[in-house]
Amino acid sequence: MCRWIAYRGETVPLEQYVTAPAHSLIVQSVRALESTAGTNGDGFGLGWYGEHPEPGLYREVRPAWSDENLRYLCRHIHSHLYFAHVRSSTGTPITRPNCHPFACGRWMFMHNGVIGNWSRLRRKVEALIPDELYGSRVGTTDSEAVFLAILGAGGDKDPVGATAQILTTLTALASTNGLSEPLRFTAAMANGRDLFAFRYAANSDANSLYYREAGGNVVVVSEPLDAERSQWTPVPPGYALLAVAGKPVALAPFLAESRIAAE
Amino acid sequence: MCRWIAYRGETVPLEQYVTAPAHSLIVQSVRALESTAGTNGDGFGLGWYGEHPEPGLYREVRPAWSDENLRYLCRHIHSHLYFAHVRSSTGTPITRPNCHPFACGRWMFMHNGVIGNWSRLRRKVEALIPDELYGSRVGTTDSEAVFLAILGAGGDKDPVGATAQILTTLTALASTNGLSEPLRFTAAMANGRDLFAFRYAANSDANSLYYREAGGNVVVVSEPLDAERSQWTPVPPGYALLAVAGKPVALAPFLAESRIAAE
Amino acid sequence: MCRWIAYRGETVPLEQYVTAPAHSLIVQSVRALESTAGTNGDGFGLGWYGEHPEPGLYREVRPAWSDENLRYLCRHIHSHLYFAHVRSSTGTPITRPNCHPFACGRWMFMHNGVIGNWSRLRRKVEALIPDELYGSRVGTTDSEAVFLAILGAGGDKDPVGATAQILTTLTALASTNGLSEPLRFTAAMANGRDLFAFRYAANSDANSLYYREAGGNVVVVSEPLDAERSQWTPVPPGYALLAVAGKPVALAPFLAESRIAAE
Amino acid sequence: MCRWIAYRGETVPLEQYVTAPAHSLIVQSVRALESTAGTNGDGFGLGWYGEHPEPGLYREVRPAWSDENLRYLCRHIHSHLYFAHVRSSTGTPITRPNCHPFACGRWMFMHNGVIGNWSRLRRKVEALIPDELYGSRVGTTDSEAVFLAILGAGGDKDPVGATAQILTTLTALASTNGLSEPLRFTAAMANGRDLFAFRYAANSDANSLYYREAGGNVVVVSEPLDAERSQWTPVPPGYALLAVAGKPVALAPFLAESRIAAE
Repeated sequence: MCRWIAYRGETVPLEQYVTAPAHSLIVQSVRALESTAGTNGDGFGLGWYGEHPEPGLYREVRPAWSDENLRYLCRHIHSHLYFAHVRSSTGTPITRPNCHPFACGRWMFMHNGVIGNWSRLRRKVEALIPDELYGSRVGTTDSEAVFLAILGAGGDKDPVGATAQILTTLTALASTNGLSEPLRFTAAMANGRDLFAFRYAANSDANSLYYREAGGNVVVVSEPLDAERSQWTPVPPGYALLAVAGKPVALAPFLAESRIAAE
Repeated sequence: MCRWIAYRGETVPLEQYVTAPAHSLIVQSVRALESTAGTNGDGFGLGWYGEHPEPGLYREVRPAWSDENLRYLCRHIHSHLYFAHVRSSTGTPITRPNCHPFACGRWMFMHNGVIGNWSRLRRKVEALIPDELYGSRVGTTDSEAVFLAILGAGGDKDPVGATAQILTTLTALASTNGLSEPLRFTAAMANGRDLFAFRYAANSDANSLYYREAGGNVVVVSEPLDAERSQWTPVPPGYALLAVAGKPVALAPFLAESRIAAE
Repeated sequence: MCRWIAYRGETVPLEQYVTAPAHSLIVQSVRALESTAGTNGDGFGLGWYGEHPEPGLYREVRPAWSDENLRYLCRHIHSHLYFAHVRSSTGTPITRPNCHPFACGRWMFMHNGVIGNWSRLRRKVEALIPDELYGSRVGTTDSEAVFLAILGAGGDKDPVGATAQILTTLTALASTNGLSEPLRFTAAMANGRDLFAFRYAANSDANSLYYREAGGNVVVVSEPLDAERSQWTPVPPGYALLAVAGKPVALAPFLAESRIAAE
Repeated sequence: MCRWIAYRGETVPLEQYVTAPAHSLIVQSVRALESTAGTNGDGFGLGWYGEHPEPGLYREVRPAWSDENLRYLCRHIHSHLYFAHVRSSTGTPITRPNCHPFACGRWMFMHNGVIGNWSRLRRKVEALIPDELYGSRVGTTDSEAVFLAILGAGGDKDPVGATAQILTTLTALASTNGLSEPLRFTAAMANGRDLFAFRYAANSDANSLYYREAGGNVVVVSEPLDAERSQWTPVPPGYALLAVAGKPVALAPFLAESRIAAE
């Protein structure tokens, strides 16, 4: 299990949520509290939107806690919409292209979870990626494959609907032939303006996901960034968080059957 | 274009052919002479057989010329059959799993060449890998895909026949729909006892390949390791070099039509 | 010999001078034209000033030409004063702390050159660093030691005078005991407002250094970024380039004896 | 605090003590039990003796737990005397030259501990290194400086005496001016034939150190490699373990006052 944060709101330096908080993502890379993987030292990544439609990325295979570049970048880069992710690999190699977030055109995606028995399902999931997006598969993770599958299912137009569609397919794949492979999907997607986050699981408990909103700024996190737990609201399993430009942040059930499957 | 060497013979330290010669592979990583890529600084790898059926590997994304670990390992590791490779990427990311050599079971493979328009042909080539070997695809290169396709075509039993079969398929793929994508394949395979090297091209000139044999020891190289050119024999395009245990080194045409295609 | 660029002027994205030009620094990392080291693949670095008094840094041991992070950062980071450097090591290890630029407080420094027989002179040069700055010596290069020695000699108040003083000392050290070790120093320093560049050598020819000025923006480079050579003015050996806030760019002899020594 | 193992005995593959045991050093890199640093992910190193007087080294900045090269090397390299070390930095940068073990001529050294207030003592400790060994200082750690100081104090002839002498000097430095900086030194040294290990502290408790001996083979470890605690004997603070060729393993008090200081 990995740990991540996503932010949308006023333009702030990345450090405000990545390195500064008491239980910041960097602290979580050394010692996470709500994760089976206490240490998230298998690489990390930053993704942010600035003046271009496409996001900027900084991904590295070393642990986040000792990366001096990361501290400089978090201090100097400002953004209104950014992601940060510390990785605990579930088996795929520790390479930069396997570090989150992933980018494709104006979209950015990151994930904490697992597709159970990935080696058995890999080809079936990769087959969900349309040819025109297959060139964007530069790594080998399950996460990147699911991202491109979501975009291929119309995620650019309807990110929630496309995610629900792909997760329905994945749930079926994970449950065929008498198998019940765990499927855990706690992910964020953004297009430069809007931020979407998802919490879902099948054949397993869902990974933790929280958010905090104040003054139109929203932070979505794998686990709270400080000890003030009352400030952090869990996203229920099967729900999506929608932080769409010009609208209040909303939670919405996006995959009814998932809630059943997760119980 | 990359540069590589392969050795089969008496057990010697790797340094004998990797770092010691005047125009060693390390020197070639800085300045190759017979390659369109003067610099081969996109990672490197060593593979060698010792006491186990499976080879050992050391692969790294940094350039070979400045890697102090490489010098220590070449000095301390001895082998009767080993590979070394310096990479000049043709587009796939600089990651350890994309560095040569690749290993699968007791087999080891490395490659210098290109599959033209890889982004268009990638899915077709990956489809040649049987399911039971797809889990061994840990990187994203064309080279690794071809290696696993060869093993899937029976390379373990008949490496020359399986290589010819896959190259015939690749030549057809590269030449469909009125296209003539260049296909260059200069590769080595080994199983711990036997060494096979191949030189082939379609829609292009073949990359250079030479060998030197003395006292039952054979070295196969992308370009000569020293200025004594007369000691180095070119492998003709369309030919395989066979260094099989208990037999003299032999050259054999392995893909007749390739010689036509390469002209 | 390394290659570098320094920019001071209107706020622009780093890519304008690092990655975009025909003979950009990234191109020079693969194939420099006016350097004895054709390849500058021993790490690289970016340094830039933004909203903080201290610069941001991004330094990496991999070659610049294949670093995807570098391209993203150059596209997304804007600055009115920034440095970029590709390294060709003269012997010290390829580590991030040995990559240029170096930062100390609000100052930033980078260098192309060599202190001949560094192993013999190292302790003498390190002894020039005052105790209060010795904690800023996080790497092992001659360049970082000279930078801290310059700051220790009053570089914060009088960068040109302090540089002249330290180079005078170094010239004497390099020429003692009947020795004439080459000393080549082509460097840039900045404090967030002002940019200083130096070209000097003793017992050797000076490394190349050029600049181009237009509309109050100045770029200083190891070698021209494009084929329009007439646009680039050489900095003479023994001269400093001063790009001080609120004043026109000026060249000034800063070390008279150096011009003699360099001839 | 770091974790390490040292082995001297029959020639075995490195994996026997580095990767194979239940609580192997690789497991300790993720979760150590007797260390204040639960995670030792700041790089690692292997050092071993083979056919040359000088040891081979493999050092890397990535965590040991995810390094596929490490597993291959531990499986394929055999040695009668080897070190392995996983690092938890006390402040100096994560670079290969700062990873243990360190080598100088035929000697190899690794360390778990700290010199308190290193930034204040650094110059004094570096001054203990004689000129002829200063060129071997390729990193910036306190550990490497102490190693070279020990060699400079005659460690090649009398490793225990020289270590005692340098630690006496360090204890005095750490306790001057009314200060009582912690000094913890749990280290191993070898020359290709003999292995020496030391446990010492001043102004602090000593870090843990154990050994197990059987059939002439000795393993010295920061913490036991398995749950059979009764098989592992603690080295008392202030004692050295001597595994000298042709003699039985012996424990000897090597720095009487240290035992007092550590209490």
